Amino acid sequence: MPIVQAITSRDNPLLQKLRKLVADPGAYRKLGELWVEGDHLCDAALQRGQAVPLAVIADTAWCGEQGQGATTDPVAQRLSQLAEQARKVVVLPEALMRTVSSLESPARLGFVLPLPQDTAVRPGLRTVVLDRLQDAGNVGTVLRSASALGVQQVVALKGTAALWSPKVLRAGMGAHWALHLVEQSPLEALDALQVPLVATSSHADHQLHQAPLPEPCAWVMGHEGQGVQAALMARCAMTVGIPQPGGEESLNVGAAASICLYESMRRRLV
Amino acid sequence: MPIVQAITSRDNPLLQKLRKLVADPGAYRKLGELWVEGDHLCDAALQRGQAVPLAVIADTAWCGEQGQGATTDPVAQRLSQLAEQARKVVVLPEALMRTVSSLESPARLGFVLPLPQDTAVRPGLRTVVLDRLQDAGNVGTVLRSASALGVQQVVALKGTAALWSPKVLRAGMGAHWALHLVEQSPLEALDALQVPLVATSSHADHQLHQAPLPEPCAWVMGHEGQGVQAALMARCAMTVGIPQPGGEESLNVGAAASICLYESMRRRLV
Repeated sequence: MPIVQAITSRDNPLLQKLRKLVADPGAYRKLGELWVEGDHLCDAALQRGQAVPLAVIADTAWCGEQGQGATTDPVAQRLSQLAEQARKVVVLPEALMRTVSSLESPARLGFVLPLPQDTAVRPGLRTVVLDRLQDAGNVGTVLRSASALGVQQVVALKGTAALWSPKVLRAGMGAHWALHLVEQSPLEALDALQVPLVATSSHADHQLHQAPLPEPCAWVMGHEGQGVQAALMARCAMTVGIPQPGGEESLNVGAAASICLYESMRRRLV
Repeated sequence: MPIVQAITSRDNPLLQKLRKLVADPGAYRKLGELWVEGDHLCDAALQRGQAVPLAVIADTAWCGEQGQGATTDPVAQRLSQLAEQARKVVVLPEALMRTVSSLESPARLGFVLPLPQDTAVRPGLRTVVLDRLQDAGNVGTVLRSASALGVQQVVALKGTAALWSPKVLRAGMGAHWALHLVEQSPLEALDALQVPLVATSSHADHQLHQAPLPEPCAWVMGHEGQGVQAALMARCAMTVGIPQPGGEESLNVGAAASICLYESMRRRLV
């Protein structure tokens, strides 16, 4: 059973740290810790074997000592069971829980997790490379699709939105713990991938559905406005275009990534 | 050449109307008019042959009378050329332009367009049916992918986010003018489609890549949390699952729609 502690002071150092993590999407890089809100994400981390040093739970959801969660409330029971997987549980009044949330409807459970330290690019994996993607929702969608469609690694180049920010975590829906993630990567680090790079382009060598896609490969997804930078494009073994008979100029990058990853997966299945 | 009028009063009825359209994403339904901001969307509407009764442009971007836009500034020239396609141009001080914008960086050009009146479900078209999608970004992404990948019609059932709201317009990136759009539709109106309905489901008849997809068909995309409602599922000719070897429980609905529409298009191309 975990150690249980009640915190009732707004100025407690733990709460100050959580507020920093909420206020600044890149603060986790300095602090070396992640603030993961909500039962879905917490459960996803546990399912993937993540060790949890600290759970923070609202007193209205905690069924153990210091809590008010009625043991007959199935939601409180579930949140408490998740919290009990941590080494330590901090119980907060619900009003204080709201002060450390990045959500409009604050969650009643969160985990404080260490930022993964093993961030070397791994060779030979099915990979997605993010080239300066700006929108946190897009980054989260790409991670979610990557994980679902069998990608093993995501490498975010310098200038990409912070992968472990609250917004990206939320849009990723748990994908973060199913992927090997590398961020703030210089271009040269891609040498370690040892798989061919494939980029989407409107002036492409091949149409996606006809392209002789390498397997495994690293799919390169570019900046929402500027696309893939020239120095990275020069490293690509192949460029492909997604046919767009509707004549629109481009797809959203999350949609384009999902389509490319689906096509790679489809080839593996047939 | 259009009629040109300068407006300098914050309380002008036109500006009050635009503020209503910005403040309430569904206000266009009552007012029967759309407020379309930014050169990309305005250009997309023109490209698709939309008649423009009214353009609103910042004085700093307008190169004609009442304007300050230097005729040597290529951006101002381009915005002015777009504005001149309208029957009437209203020129606003840039500070007032900001009061009628839904954008963090306000655009210097917008069109006021009539809401399309022809909103009967059309038979025999490649269609997407939206079943109570809640997130404006998701709805816009689906519209954008639908247009790019050859869909002709989108039918939004009652309870779906307003299709012509500023947020959906922005995420749609011009797709609105390439599609026949129907919204607030009752389930029974789908009888008029006269094409088979296909839904994604985790308990599906077929895997997407192996499914005998009908062509044309209507792809049904369900509520982000609840999926497709039972009464609609009962109308579907087929359910398909997107293989997800990564074991995640689901894809973002915009990603799932993009993959399904790509697979349908791929079959048409091979």
